[in-house]
Amino acid sequence: MDHAVDELMRASASDPRVIGLSGGLPSDGLFPRRALAESFLRVLEQPSTLQYGWPEGHLPLREQIARRLRARGAVVTADSVLVTSGAQQAIAIAADLVAQRGDRIEVERLTYPSALELFRAQGLRPVPARSDVDHDIRLSYVMPAVGNPVGGRFAVEERRALLARRKHLVIEDDAYADLSFDGPAPRPLVADLPSRVFHVGTFSKILCPGLRIGWLVVPKRFREQARALKSASDLQAGSLAQLLLNDYLEHADLDERLTRLRRFYRTRAQRLARALRQHAPFWQFQMPTGGFSIWVDTGTRRGEQDFLRAAIAEGVSFDPGSLFRATAAAQPLAFRLCFSRAAPEQLVDGVKRLVRAWGRVQPG
Amino acid sequence: MDHAVDELMRASASDPRVIGLSGGLPSDGLFPRRALAESFLRVLEQPSTLQYGWPEGHLPLREQIARRLRARGAVVTADSVLVTSGAQQAIAIAADLVAQRGDRIEVERLTYPSALELFRAQGLRPVPARSDVDHDIRLSYVMPAVGNPVGGRFAVEERRALLARRKHLVIEDDAYADLSFDGPAPRPLVADLPSRVFHVGTFSKILCPGLRIGWLVVPKRFREQARALKSASDLQAGSLAQLLLNDYLEHADLDERLTRLRRFYRTRAQRLARALRQHAPFWQFQMPTGGFSIWVDTGTRRGEQDFLRAAIAEGVSFDPGSLFRATAAAQPLAFRLCFSRAAPEQLVDGVKRLVRAWGRVQPG
Repeated sequence: MDHAVDELMRASASDPRVIGLSGGLPSDGLFPRRALAESFLRVLEQPSTLQYGWPEGHLPLREQIARRLRARGAVVTADSVLVTSGAQQAIAIAADLVAQRGDRIEVERLTYPSALELFRAQGLRPVPARSDVDHDIRLSYVMPAVGNPVGGRFAVEERRALLARRKHLVIEDDAYADLSFDGPAPRPLVADLPSRVFHVGTFSKILCPGLRIGWLVVPKRFREQARALKSASDLQAGSLAQLLLNDYLEHADLDERLTRLRRFYRTRAQRLARALRQHAPFWQFQMPTGGFSIWVDTGTRRGEQDFLRAAIAEGVSFDPGSLFRATAAAQPLAFRLCFSRAAPEQLVDGVKRLVRAWGRVQPG
Repeated sequence: MDHAVDELMRASASDPRVIGLSGGLPSDGLFPRRALAESFLRVLEQPSTLQYGWPEGHLPLREQIARRLRARGAVVTADSVLVTSGAQQAIAIAADLVAQRGDRIEVERLTYPSALELFRAQGLRPVPARSDVDHDIRLSYVMPAVGNPVGGRFAVEERRALLARRKHLVIEDDAYADLSFDGPAPRPLVADLPSRVFHVGTFSKILCPGLRIGWLVVPKRFREQARALKSASDLQAGSLAQLLLNDYLEHADLDERLTRLRRFYRTRAQRLARALRQHAPFWQFQMPTGGFSIWVDTGTRRGEQDFLRAAIAEGVSFDPGSLFRATAAAQPLAFRLCFSRAAPEQLVDGVKRLVRAWGRVQPG
């Protein structure tokens, strides 16, 4: 990200006068504080909670992760699960295992900014997927269940086409899969192609980001290397966070919680969509089927940084669209609005402020 | 590590009949459980504890880390401190910032195995330091305060010679510095050469490994890049672990704790040394000045794996010497014995078992 934009967004994030529609943060009010406190006090007495553990992670937690994936149709055992320091590290390890500097990696036309940054940091070249498949590209990064920023699901043909590509490897980022508004997470790609799909998941969106626990399901032939890479990177994910999480999962009804979360975020999404239709009918968007955000396309060419500055001056933040494009193009001007963390009334106020800011930005 | 050896050591680690003299783990009995529980309950109410944070880490924690380094003579501010997922990630980021695949990196003749593994994973070539300096090597990895596995401190001339090398960069791993048996941690290298020293620290040895919190002090010109690299790797260190640790440090008397730890580990070291002198007078070792271990050199050529198998069969584990050598040489046969986690009476029994195992291994 441009340094000036970065500074601007950081300053606005800690400014209580600014309505935060950026960042992709879950709602703080939904964190299971009491249950985590109970788990903490239980696990504190176990010797391994504060000690070193193995690089691949805490076995009972890996078993729980595998069990949840099996319930979605994937043949996954604890052996194939590597606990990571969040989904970000899972993507990093997968890409590091299979791609070389200079390689191209196919991504969705709009995709997760930190994955793009990571691929660039590894010397890879992210290229947006096209309808005419480029068979020289051997690796894709996708979010088939619930995309980010658009919040859509892969169509059946899209999924089929991806799986049909010969010798093609896939990093499946499933971060938002449990937050499909219409019900439980769909069958993951890894269920259909376990030998070529690296499946990435996280507890950050459905429980809380503060634990920094994600996972990578690794095809068998890469497992030993993946474990060595995890060990070289940071030895292991935190024992305390893993045991805390494992205890929480043993005691909580996660499916009941997910039902509640889906309803919560769907209501927020509807509220933001209504505000956009009412106050900003000149912008285009598509109703998300899950996740934390709505992607707004203005269809016009205006200065992205100018609009961001104007918005923050009006007291609202958003995520600039250029961050989500493999090409980093800022035009036509588009942006991501997150409905996940702001209060319902803030969503309406936030859109009004955005519209005021828009009026102050000149067409390019 | 050889796969068979790895499996053997993993199996022995979870076998209660085996006295664990391997691994470099702190004593479980010293973890400040009650104080951490109090901190947990305090920080749980803060919104940022379970939420995402910034890549560089929690500012109050970075300030506390900087303050402790200033007390040791280094001009360090929070700006230069990056909170990492343990010391391992700090070393990884530092090496990634300044070295290219194929570069040589100078290490001590005996050094930390996971750093060697990491350098090899990054495509670097670790080479042991020689008395005739090789001026083509531009980067060193050292543990000047308390080495691992030998547990010695750099001599004044050694330190001076390293700092005098022109344009030379240094990764200073200070993991055990607070555990010098004779008193507070010495002046770090970064105090004398802040523009060319990457200073690495961790709370794993002095508090507990389970939080997975370490840090990297980054020379000014590398800071922005370091933050980007941390973000690409895993976004940030866990918020919960950082806020918990910060609260603990605000409430605890860490210096009093360190005094207690030094006494504890010094007594253990003396106990192990006494047992070695008494039961294994044919082995050489040097009394460590700090840390968790004694390096034993048999001065003979015998099969390392044979000895390890025999030792585990007798009910005692050790860390094979080949792991600590940049060349991975297994001869002459040497090994690391950790006195940090085993109970005092186990140290004596462990040595007796080692000697029995030794008697069963044929000279090579």
